[in-house]
Amino acid sequence: MVTKNFRDNFAKIAPYVSGEQPKMDGLIKLNSNENPYPPSPKVKKAAATIESAKLSLYPSSDAEELIDKLADYHGLKTENVFVGNGSDEVLGLAFRAFFNSELPIAYPDITYSFYPVWCEFFKIPFVTFALDDSFRINADDYIAPNGGVVITNPNAPTSIGERTDFIRKILDNNRDVVVIVDEAYVDFGGSSSIELIQEYDNLLVVHTFSKSRSLAGIRVGACFGNSELIAVMNTVKNSFNSYPVDTIAQKLAIASLDDESYFSDIVHEIITTRENTVKALEQLGFHTLESSTNFIFTTHESIHAKEIFVHLREDKILVRYFNKPRIGNYLRITIGTAAQMDALIESLERLI
Amino acid sequence: MVTKNFRDNFAKIAPYVSGEQPKMDGLIKLNSNENPYPPSPKVKKAAATIESAKLSLYPSSDAEELIDKLADYHGLKTENVFVGNGSDEVLGLAFRAFFNSELPIAYPDITYSFYPVWCEFFKIPFVTFALDDSFRINADDYIAPNGGVVITNPNAPTSIGERTDFIRKILDNNRDVVVIVDEAYVDFGGSSSIELIQEYDNLLVVHTFSKSRSLAGIRVGACFGNSELIAVMNTVKNSFNSYPVDTIAQKLAIASLDDESYFSDIVHEIITTRENTVKALEQLGFHTLESSTNFIFTTHESIHAKEIFVHLREDKILVRYFNKPRIGNYLRITIGTAAQMDALIESLERLI
Repeated sequence: MVTKNFRDNFAKIAPYVSGEQPKMDGLIKLNSNENPYPPSPKVKKAAATIESAKLSLYPSSDAEELIDKLADYHGLKTENVFVGNGSDEVLGLAFRAFFNSELPIAYPDITYSFYPVWCEFFKIPFVTFALDDSFRINADDYIAPNGGVVITNPNAPTSIGERTDFIRKILDNNRDVVVIVDEAYVDFGGSSSIELIQEYDNLLVVHTFSKSRSLAGIRVGACFGNSELIAVMNTVKNSFNSYPVDTIAQKLAIASLDDESYFSDIVHEIITTRENTVKALEQLGFHTLESSTNFIFTTHESIHAKEIFVHLREDKILVRYFNKPRIGNYLRITIGTAAQMDALIESLERLI
Repeated sequence: MVTKNFRDNFAKIAPYVSGEQPKMDGLIKLNSNENPYPPSPKVKKAAATIESAKLSLYPSSDAEELIDKLADYHGLKTENVFVGNGSDEVLGLAFRAFFNSELPIAYPDITYSFYPVWCEFFKIPFVTFALDDSFRINADDYIAPNGGVVITNPNAPTSIGERTDFIRKILDNNRDVVVIVDEAYVDFGGSSSIELIQEYDNLLVVHTFSKSRSLAGIRVGACFGNSELIAVMNTVKNSFNSYPVDTIAQKLAIASLDDESYFSDIVHEIITTRENTVKALEQLGFHTLESSTNFIFTTHESIHAKEIFVHLREDKILVRYFNKPRIGNYLRITIGTAAQMDALIESLERLI
């Protein structure tokens, strides 16, 4: 086909519509699953001592220091670790690296909304399987020929975490494809499958610095797997962008990993605030799914989620509402500080 | 095809082998076209005042402040500007955005080595046209049906810049496809085609902060084009990674654009050092192509480039040698500080 117009060659991709990010003073932002606490003071200190002269040079393409640190942190070898420009880039590159079958890849119908987007971007066929009536993933759905499997665990926006045995069942029944387990929220009470990479050479576990480590602003994600999978990830990365994690981001991510006590303190604080919020919401007539994440997924016994969303927004409290089948009467609410959640409860008390 | 082994689904991509980046004390690094000067003192100041609390939040997906600044700097509208994680990401996304024809895209045989890599990554057919005997691009080669055109101007590794009329000729003969002009080195004496975007709605001009702005370490690239092209770039970006340019990188890039006098000083210094280096090399029997970049491409009248490369490396001076047809007797030498280039000349005097 000879084109008649340069527009004929544009990518046939539907624009992805992300959640609103309005800017207003006094906004309580509980819509993006960001961490309400700043990163470790060690991160601030590292940022203050950046050597300007080093910025003229390209970052280390292999990100050795950060990869060494992550390997050490998780008790792995460096050959089991890969880092990228946020876990979104890591996942996108993993789709390109491992999902090249003619069979569709499989993932749940209600999960991270970017999976179909990457499938379109890389022209990967996919099929989705419905969560059950309790919004749980049915492992049996993934016992069938497919081109790969992606499981978010804990899942989003449901907040529900599955135990390692569940992941093991999916792995045992999918030895002929790569299984990606996206653990963006695992630090808030989930069960990590990271140790299973020693046992399953087809398992890739993806982590992010954007949630539990309060570093969404610097874009660092990582994945862990058998050295063979990591080698393919490196080949694919080096075929797209050799230096995706910049010099400063690498330095600040290392500083974060160097402060385990701060990390566990804020994670613990968020879990405590979450449990208190769930109890307070229960007294107001909310039913909340059991969360292993830094957000909750909740529905009210009589007032529609959309109405609650609009009311909260008027009170400058932003939560996430999905106008979609099955979850249209639920709200996804990020766990903020105790004070922010008190403001949320007070606003809801005025409505209910 | 049902796969029998998860390895069957791995991406069929040959690993890209980048130039060596050895670590040794006292190395004079003239092999990566990095800037020998640090970024503006304003960048250092901006880095020292990063608000740690802001790092918990995702960066602006639209990178408004940086895009506003770039639009203002170049006298464009914000709808004409796009930014990404280095110009490599910008170029990679542009290939995905605009090169979807069944006809091959066209570019020179000797040019930026990443173009065939992105073609493989995104499965884009391509054809290359040989540079002429003076290593110049022949515009007539690009007057034929194709799926798009990519021209690096000034070209690398040849260092030769073409005037705007040359780009105009390619544009006039390729109105039915997108033409990408990669201007990574334009600030060192090239002719920018950025003003032509008002006239040609199929022109995308790509810039980087890694060369003239001494910011290779923070990964910021940009492109400029008709609002329609930029909208497609945004759709494609949002289908891969919503927040590729982190909060700190955006801030430091803006600080760099705020210091025009420092920028023009170091660019002028590099051009002066380049001209002095070319003269000194000429006296030693080198023939150097006319450079509009921060590097030179040079060959010696009697000693083979490989031998010179090895000799310089023994003196801890690293330059780039390409073991490839036609350019195998040339060296690509980045322009460093005057002192670094003096050390280069002294080392060569010992050899010759």
